[in-house]
This record gives sequence, C-alpha cells and structure tokens, in this order.
Amino acid sequence: MARRSAGIRRDSAETRDRLLDSAALLLGERGTAFTLPDLARAAGISSATVYRHFADVQEVHREFYYRLIDELVGDLGKVSARARGRRRFDAICDRWAACAALWGRAATHIRSAEGFLARVHRADPPTSALYGILAPVIEELAEDGTIPAQDTDYAVLVWITMFDERVIVDLAESLRWPTKRIGRTLSASVLGALGHGGAPG
Amino acid sequence: MARRSAGIRRDSAETRDRLLDSAALLLGERGTAFTLPDLARAAGISSATVYRHFADVQEVHREFYYRLIDELVGDLGKVSARARGRRRFDAICDRWAACAALWGRAATHIRSAEGFLARVHRADPPTSALYGILAPVIEELAEDGTIPAQDTDYAVLVWITMFDERVIVDLAESLRWPTKRIGRTLSASVLGALGHGGAPG
Repeated sequence: MARRSAGIRRDSAETRDRLLDSAALLLGERGTAFTLPDLARAAGISSATVYRHFADVQEVHREFYYRLIDELVGDLGKVSARARGRRRFDAICDRWAACAALWGRAATHIRSAEGFLARVHRADPPTSALYGILAPVIEELAEDGTIPAQDTDYAVLVWITMFDERVIVDLAESLRWPTKRIGRTLSASVLGALGHGGAPG
Repeated sequence: MARRSAGIRRDSAETRDRLLDSAALLLGERGTAFTLPDLARAAGISSATVYRHFADVQEVHREFYYRLIDELVGDLGKVSARARGRRRFDAICDRWAACAALWGRAATHIRSAEGFLARVHRADPPTSALYGILAPVIEELAEDGTIPAQDTDYAVLVWITMFDERVIVDLAESLRWPTKRIGRTLSASVLGALGHGGAPG
C-alpha cells in the first residue's frame, strides 16, 4: 500500500510538472490568453485531470512563476557557492541572464504588481529566497570595497530591477545581443549604479 | 448645428476623462479586478454610457495607460525644455519620481509584456514619445562628457527600467523614502549605471 501511494504521488507530481511545462510554452507563445481546457489539450492530458491539479488558470500562472523562481534560486545558489566577491557577483549575473534567456519570454506575462521589497518584507517565500541569495553578495562587495557601504535593500532592488526578464528579452530580441553580452553589460550597469567607479563593460 | 456637435463632443470627452479618473482610482484600490458596470457605478455614470465609450475593460486599462504616458511625456517635455545637460537630466528624474508618486500604484497593475525597445522599434506612439524626450538628454550627457559615448537605446532602456513605477512605489511604501530622495537616488543610480564616475547620492 505504502509503495502504491508513493507511486501515485510520483505520477501526480509528474503530471503537474508536465502541465507546468506546457503552461510555459503557452505563455511564451500567446501570453496569458489560454484556458484550463487549452492547457489540457496542449499537454495531452484530460481536462478532468487538469481540474484536479488547478482551481483556475490564475493558479497555473502563479505555480509556473513559483517553480521558475525556485529553479532560478537553485541555479544561482549553486553558482554563488563556488566563488567570492566580484567573481561571485559576475558569475551570478552570467547565470541569471542565461536562465532568463530560456524562460524570459513566458515570464514577461506573469508579473506581480506588488514591489519586490514589499514581498520580501512580508516574507513571501520565493522572493525571500531570491533576496537570501543576493543580499550576502552585495554585503560582501561592500566589505571588500568594490562598492561603497550602502542600504542592502536598495542595492538588491537595483539588481533585480536591472535583471528584469522583460529587459533581458528586449536586449536579446530588439538589439540582438547574445546572452553573454547581456549578462556582462547588465552586471557592469548594476555595479555602476551601486557606485563602483570602474568603466562599464 | 456646428455649435451643438462641438458641445456634444466636449461632453463626450469630459465623460471619458471622468471615467478614466475613476478607472485610476479603482486600479489603485483593487487592481484590474473590476468590470465595466463597476466602473459605471464608481463614476456615477450609466452602464449604457460606459459601453458607448469602451468595448471592454481591457480597453479601459489601455486608455488609462495611454493617457498617463501622454501626461508624463507632456510634464517631462516641459521640464526638459528649461535646462541643459546634467541639470536637465536631474530635473527630468525629479519630475518623473513626483509623477509616479501620484499614479504609480494604479500603473503597477498595467504593464506591457512587450519590451520598451520592441515598442519603440515598432513606433508605438506613447512609447516613442517618451523615447523622444529621453534620448536627446542621453546624447547631450555623452557629448558634454558626463557619461561615456554609448548605445543610446541601451542607455534609455536603463533609465526607464530604473524609473519603473513599481520601483518608485516600492521605495515609497516599503522603505518610506520621500519622493525627493527617490528621484535623487534613482537619478544617481542611472548615471552610475551609464558609466558616470561620481559617487551615488
């Protein structure tokens, strides 16, 4: 019995993941203008099953976004553990641009109207996890003198604002910049915005 | 007859303005979750009249946003005509923060998924008008040596990204910064991001 329920739970998690993969494709192609039956069709799963997983399409948008931030936090966390100081900052920026190049187009359609710091202050889990990766990097840059001592909340806000997925997609599609150039240029702009005296990249 | 139609047109424009004023209040209070009958009630105007002005609530959102950008472009244009160089840049930043402090909360609920440069490149009228105010200021700063010579499209993108209304509302509400401090700090961050060597404000 225990093995059977574990199997059912695993099937259920796999179905949910498959639905969120299809939601990502639909969001990238046509934005938020799709219904739960559209999602069922796109994933090749019955509508009845889709309704067991999601109450409405807004829940799909939210879950897609949460999974995406979870994956981003996981990716940035791994990169962050491997370096220190300026190299750590640059490695995070490079990886962030590479991640957003993959799912950025879908993500531009899902955006909280609530500010980043407002979500951090009310301890919203995905936002707080992202803040938890970025804030120590800012503090380290201030300690080693790369940037002047400053308000960590403001500095993290500048960082996430410049790495907005709409900005990254715009640079890739409107200016045809390769991902590496996007990461390097945005990282130089963020450092400049935070008072680093070096020339921009 | 001619006088009578001009009067009708004026009444109609006044009704539309009044509806958009009410839409701004509703957006600020409860986001996009309102219907055309809700808007009619809030404005004290019959539903039939509202339906003569707008096909659906999405059209209300769009018109609200267009009017807002029109007003912003008018305001920034006036400020821009009065100064040159760094003082012109600072005056625009101050005014922008002051404008966004008024309507920012409502505007955070309305946001194009399409990038700023993508809209400029397809000559979207409100976006192009805003670009038309900001681009010459960037070019002037590069000419007088305040910032290094650089890609104007990228520089304007950095500027509008940092002056995102969600950022301005977040700084006002989460960090309780006064409008003047928001304008000054964001303007110093934008200059720093564009390679100006000075210390941030």
